[in-house]
Formats: sequence, C-alpha cells, structure tokens
Amino acid sequence: MKPSVYLGIDLGGTSIKMGLVDQLGNILHTLEGPTPAGYHQVLAVFSQMAEQILQKSHYAWDDIIGVGVGVPAFLDQQRGIVIEAVNLGWDQVPLKEDLEKLWTVPIIVENDANAAALGEMWNGAGKGASHLICLTLGTGIGGGVIIHGDIYHGANGSAGEVGHITVKHQGGRRCNCGRMGCLETEASATAIVLDALAQMKGMSTGPLKEEYDRTGTLTAKSVVQLAQQGDTICKEIMTKVGSVLGNTLAQMCYLLNPEIIVIGGGVALAGQILFDPLIQAFNHAILPRIAENTSIVPAKLGNQAGLTGAAWLVHRNKVITMRNKNKETTV
Amino acid sequence: MKPSVYLGIDLGGTSIKMGLVDQLGNILHTLEGPTPAGYHQVLAVFSQMAEQILQKSHYAWDDIIGVGVGVPAFLDQQRGIVIEAVNLGWDQVPLKEDLEKLWTVPIIVENDANAAALGEMWNGAGKGASHLICLTLGTGIGGGVIIHGDIYHGANGSAGEVGHITVKHQGGRRCNCGRMGCLETEASATAIVLDALAQMKGMSTGPLKEEYDRTGTLTAKSVVQLAQQGDTICKEIMTKVGSVLGNTLAQMCYLLNPEIIVIGGGVALAGQILFDPLIQAFNHAILPRIAENTSIVPAKLGNQAGLTGAAWLVHRNKVITMRNKNKETTV
Repeated sequence: MKPSVYLGIDLGGTSIKMGLVDQLGNILHTLEGPTPAGYHQVLAVFSQMAEQILQKSHYAWDDIIGVGVGVPAFLDQQRGIVIEAVNLGWDQVPLKEDLEKLWTVPIIVENDANAAALGEMWNGAGKGASHLICLTLGTGIGGGVIIHGDIYHGANGSAGEVGHITVKHQGGRRCNCGRMGCLETEASATAIVLDALAQMKGMSTGPLKEEYDRTGTLTAKSVVQLAQQGDTICKEIMTKVGSVLGNTLAQMCYLLNPEIIVIGGGVALAGQILFDPLIQAFNHAILPRIAENTSIVPAKLGNQAGLTGAAWLVHRNKVITMRNKNKETTV
Repeated sequence: MKPSVYLGIDLGGTSIKMGLVDQLGNILHTLEGPTPAGYHQVLAVFSQMAEQILQKSHYAWDDIIGVGVGVPAFLDQQRGIVIEAVNLGWDQVPLKEDLEKLWTVPIIVENDANAAALGEMWNGAGKGASHLICLTLGTGIGGGVIIHGDIYHGANGSAGEVGHITVKHQGGRRCNCGRMGCLETEASATAIVLDALAQMKGMSTGPLKEEYDRTGTLTAKSVVQLAQQGDTICKEIMTKVGSVLGNTLAQMCYLLNPEIIVIGGGVALAGQILFDPLIQAFNHAILPRIAENTSIVPAKLGNQAGLTGAAWLVHRNKVITMRNKNKETTV
C-alpha cells in the first residue's frame, strides 16, 4: 500500500495548479490547466483534473487524506465560504461544502497568498522557521503572516493584506482599492511597467524604447532583463522598487520581529538587481537589534508554493488529530 | 482561608508600583515608591515593599501563587534575564533567578509595554479580545502585540517596538535610537513639547507663550489643556499627533488586522482632542473591509495596567498548569 498523500490546489485567475504532495511536503505529481469562467465550471475542471492526476500517478481517492485549496479571495476560512473573489467574479460561494460533496474527503480552503506563505514555510525558503512574513510580488502584492508555525488570520481574515500599506503619502498612483500610494502601486510588476512607461515618455532612443518599439509593449520581465544588462534607467526603476520594499519591510519588523521574510512572485526572480537595494534600504531603516535574528530571502518554490501550502493545511489538521488521539490513548 | 492571589510589579525608571491582584484581575492592594539607583537596591526595595503590602493586606507568602514583574528593558523572557535596561542602567542581570532566591515562589519577567498590554487585555479596555495592539504614549512610545490571547515576542523579543517605526521620511527629528522621524519623535509627549516650543519661537503673546512665561517650561499636559481650552496652535499640535498615530495604526492593521487597538499612557488622557483626528486619519488610511472588526479605544487601567499584566503572566501559567493536570487526571 502506498503512503497516504495530500491533494493541493492553487486556484489562480488565469490557471489552476494541482499537485499530489507527500507527508514531507514534496510534490509527487502536478498538473496545470486554464481557469474557466464561472464557479460551477471551476468545480468541474477541479474534478476532471483530480481524476487525471490520480490516474497518471496511480493513486486512488483512498490514498488522499484531504484536499487544500488556495483561492485569490477574501474568505471565511472557518466555514470555507468565499466571500469575494474579484478576479474570479465569485461572491458568497460555499466552496468547502461543495467540494466535500464532490470528493467526500476533508477540504480546507485558504487565501492564496497565505497558502503560498505556508508552502514556503513547510518545504521552501522558510523551512524550519516559525515566525515569517511572506510577500508575493506579482501584478499585485499579496502577503501572509505566519506566527508560531501557522498562518495568522487576525480579526476577520485580513491579516497580511500588505499590498495596501501606504508607502507614498503624496503623489502616489491610484490603487484598485480606491486609495493612493499603496505598496502595490509602487512595487509590483504593474508598478515596474508604469514606471518604465513614464520614463520612456519623450525618449527617442535607448534600450527601453527599442524594446517597446520591437514588441509593442513593456513587461516587468523585460524591464528586469534590461536592468540586468546594465540599462541605467531600468536599474533605477528596480532600485526604487527594492528601496520601497526594503523600507516597508523594516516598518513591519518593528511590529512583528519575524525570523525570516520570504519574497516570492515573478518580480522576486529579478534577483540581485532587486535584493541589493532592498536589503540596503532595510538595513538603513531598521535598528540592528530588532533585525539581528531576521533574514530576508527569495522564495524557493516558485509557482508551486501555493499548492504545497494548500496541502500543508490538510497535513496540519492530520497532525493535530493524531496528537489528540495520542493524548487520549497514552495518558 | 483567603483565596490565593498574584503579586504584580511594574518597575519604572522613576517609580515602582506593586499590587496584589486576584484571580479575576482585580487589584486588591497597591503600593508605590521611588525607584532607587542600582540593581541590588531595587531588589531590596522590592523586598521591603512586598513585606509591607502583605502586612497591610493581611496576606501571607503562602497566599501568593507567584510574582510577575514588568521591566522597561530588552530581555530574554524565557530565561528571565534583563539584557539591557537603558533607563535603569542595567546590563545582563538574572532578575528571575535572583527574585526566586528572594521569594521562593514562581517569578515571571516581561517587558513593561507588553505587561501593560496584557493588563488591558485581562481586565481593561481590551477585555474579551484575543488579538490586540496596545500603544503606550508617554515620554517615548511603547507597544505590545497580543495574538491568540497572549503576548507575541517575535524572533528575539522585539515584537511591538512600534516607537521606532519611521513616520517622517524627510525632515523628521533625531530619535534616541539614532535614526530620524521615528513615531516616538513625532507623536509622544516629548514630541508634543518640542512641537509647542517650535511654535512658540517668535511668538510675543498668546496662551502658549503665557504658560511658558508663567511656569518657565512647557509640558505635554499643559499643551493638551490649552488645546482643550480652544487654543488654535495647541489644537493643531494635537491634530498632527493624532493624525500621525491614526495613519500609522492603519498601516499596522494591514499587517495584523487586530480586533482592538488600545491606546494608553499620559498622552492618551487628552481624550477627544487626540482621538478625533486619530480616528479620522485612521479611517482615511484604512480599507473599510480590513477595519470592519477593529475598534480603537483608550486604555482603562491607567498606570495600573503594568502591574495587572505582570500578575496575568502568573495567572496564565497557573491556568496552563491546571489544564495539563486536568488532562492527566480526567482522560
């Protein structure tokens, strides 16, 4: 008999990632597919993908201890209800209940940034740490706060919503949230592109202009590449982004004094060109005593952090259940 | 036989407050005295004050479950060692060990701002809440973060050091910590006095000038009183201080999403003149969804929060011990 495993799902606005994860956090098999429009369509795709991954991996439902799902949403984690998922167009859907009907195994749902944080803690850059702040730098900026080895939800599940911390009190860009100068408008992939487009105005030549003329667009990835190739303007953009992040992380450390800060998402792949100014700004803004036990590291699991963390949620509940059973039988 | 009680001590730079606290967090007897210079002198005064309070209250050492001590220090809470207490001039002293020799009851030491936060949670403005941020606005600004009903220490005990969050990135005052524009330099009692002195320069008349000429000095209390009496300049100072605090608290809420924020210390006694601009700035800076379950309230216990919270530390350990014993006997 095979050792039992977990099924982790990372539901994104554009793709669904699903994986079988063993009890040490290692991914055994994965599958990825596009996210369809509509709630019931997503459930149908979940179902097909799960059957496919089981077949491919020669596992059966009896081997699955439970399913964890990371959702880009504001949710009632206890009841498993998605309260609002803007990118999916979902509003008040009983995801946990519907999946339990579908699969008859325990289901746990969690915010996607929180799931990614848990994945990095379990088997990624935060392995071994109990107190973490994790940032995901993508189109927006998501965050997860881990305290005593578990995700921290706060009063209504909003803990870790760091993308909306105000970092530019004057002259900041307008955020999707309606406010100005959020971290997300100043240090995300979107911010990098907007910075580059602003710099390009009135530019008649240079690598940035050439890239734009050649491809008809600019992406954060191309700005990062040009910066890595030595383009001064793109380097300045990355320095600004790194500085904003480093300074903001320092402010968070005064409040939370984490052991480790894990930075993931597409923008984090920029490497040194982002991390050098980030660490410099962080060290400038923090008291050495506060940060003596804090390290800042890039994420390790890439786009598999979310499904790994989703699987961890099931793992945690299994461990708690076993611990309680042991107490009952051994005392 | 009397029901057992806790002894709570709040050790400050200028005074020592000691109190007998019952198992519901109510203070039965208190005593206050000046803080002597020197570590061994403080221990001697602790000893005298404890005997005095027991005598006065007709309690005996057998009635005392344990002693909690709040210390204005950076400490190794587990080992009970004061690593550095700048205001007391202490450096690496084994406070817990020394007090256990003195009193032969369990001793727990904690940072004073953390103790005050716990006091407000147990029997003050935060009663019933499990997730709190507490600020103490005095000469400096101290903070305590409570998560799942207990103080959160972070990686090295520095969690809640919110006085050093940078709130003014340009043109801020120099802080004792060596950096510029810390929350403490912009929104403490010290900041209020410095703001008032700056405003007074070149002033030939007006209430602020008269107060200064009459008393030869300015205090935060007098600025608050003048503001309450309608003086425009003092009102503006309090509005600035409230706005800085409100905005900073909003940024903390994105990260921690607390149920309640308790604001204590001398400056919090200013009441509406501080809280109105504070709440306004908070609401302006926070997304409504994040703050829907968060309230901001003034502290209730005044200068007895610290000793109450110090007593709670012993109470918590007693409850944990009882819970473990019950598990052993009932299963």
